[in-house]
Amino acid sequence: MDFSDYVPSVSVDCVVFGFHQNQLKVLMLKLKHLNLWALPGGFIENNQSATIAADKVLKDRTGLEGIYQQQFHVFTDPERSQTSHIEQLISNDVLDKDVLGWFKNRFISIGYYALVEYSKVNKPEPDFLSEKCQWVSLDELPELMLDHEEIIKRAYVRLNQDLYQKPVGINLLPEKFTMPELQALYETILQKKIDRRNFRRKILSLNIIIDTKEKRMGSNNRAPIVYKFDKTKYHQVLKEGYHINLF
Amino acid sequence: MDFSDYVPSVSVDCVVFGFHQNQLKVLMLKLKHLNLWALPGGFIENNQSATIAADKVLKDRTGLEGIYQQQFHVFTDPERSQTSHIEQLISNDVLDKDVLGWFKNRFISIGYYALVEYSKVNKPEPDFLSEKCQWVSLDELPELMLDHEEIIKRAYVRLNQDLYQKPVGINLLPEKFTMPELQALYETILQKKIDRRNFRRKILSLNIIIDTKEKRMGSNNRAPIVYKFDKTKYHQVLKEGYHINLF
Repeated sequence: MDFSDYVPSVSVDCVVFGFHQNQLKVLMLKLKHLNLWALPGGFIENNQSATIAADKVLKDRTGLEGIYQQQFHVFTDPERSQTSHIEQLISNDVLDKDVLGWFKNRFISIGYYALVEYSKVNKPEPDFLSEKCQWVSLDELPELMLDHEEIIKRAYVRLNQDLYQKPVGINLLPEKFTMPELQALYETILQKKIDRRNFRRKILSLNIIIDTKEKRMGSNNRAPIVYKFDKTKYHQVLKEGYHINLF
Repeated sequence: MDFSDYVPSVSVDCVVFGFHQNQLKVLMLKLKHLNLWALPGGFIENNQSATIAADKVLKDRTGLEGIYQQQFHVFTDPERSQTSHIEQLISNDVLDKDVLGWFKNRFISIGYYALVEYSKVNKPEPDFLSEKCQWVSLDELPELMLDHEEIIKRAYVRLNQDLYQKPVGINLLPEKFTMPELQALYETILQKKIDRRNFRRKILSLNIIIDTKEKRMGSNNRAPIVYKFDKTKYHQVLKEGYHINLF
């Protein structure tokens, strides 16, 4: 492999969040022959911004273009770069030994979190170091390589903070949803119960959702209103930001 | 100069905010012989984290240790690295021409914002590329090199967002202050008037300031209470974060 096309010492790592059955999931790769998992990641081409490099990682792993992503932190601890997993991959013939020089670089990694509708990722694709790519529950993380667990934790903290300053639902929910479903998304991310009436009032005050005039027919007598996002207003509000107090 | 001790292709840039006479100021360097200004910045030693590198930049320029700083964004546009100012500094004998190789690297720069009490920075120190280091008003920025204006703008946006999620006053105000002075700091950063009673109520509810039992004697009949921060509670709240709605 030829790494001369890439910026030395810098990588990107992507924490891809999905929401399914009231659980927050993260897209993870299992390394070949090793009992070790990793975040989707990659390097930055010489003529590429880190954001474009992250877009490519996201497209390669999920098959989807234009996934919502956001840079959240750079990981620069000089001790974070270790090569033990690379050496194991070499001894298992997954990697050629001439790549060791590149991986012996100290890497500073730019963390991105991405939000994607779980059901759209039908067939996540492993990369050349991994044997599978799949969703893992945030509260059941396997053993992760390097500082990837810390990267996920930081991404989750940032996602939490961002809930108070910008909308996130359009990326994580299906096109049509009910107020209880939107509330369940917020409660799952925040790990806290929110008062139902307060939540409804705050969300409606943002003017980003539209009543579709449909009702969700369920097994009980309640038939909650089905909403969808007003895409124009959603993206306007996403750009401007806001400050809401959810509790 | 020998750059082999530094991580290639990565730099740090620091936006140092100070508050003086109801204006937000930024610490800037004027390049030698050029009509061009720059942010304090530096490179990362091979065994250093970016945060430690930023600490060193802050100490070298201000003389102060332990300045509050926070990573806010990484600037990765491949077009951001230009060498025209370096070439001019070489032709003015400020730099030796053998440094050009290092500066011809594409640089990804990690942005930190720092908050410092204006009056503590008595004698800001220029670096080897600059002839002076001084405070500049945020609304009167001179011509800046590279993307440093964008870096300042982004830092300012992040500082704005952070006002809703964590306290900042201890870094920007003198030890003792009145409620109108604290409010002026918030209003200066946010560029908006805040309702006086609402502000007072929200700030007091955070439990981070203490009534010193002193009063500020002024020219009119009002003698506002003098407060100071409860350092223990302040740092606890800073760590935990919060969400307040200032308007």
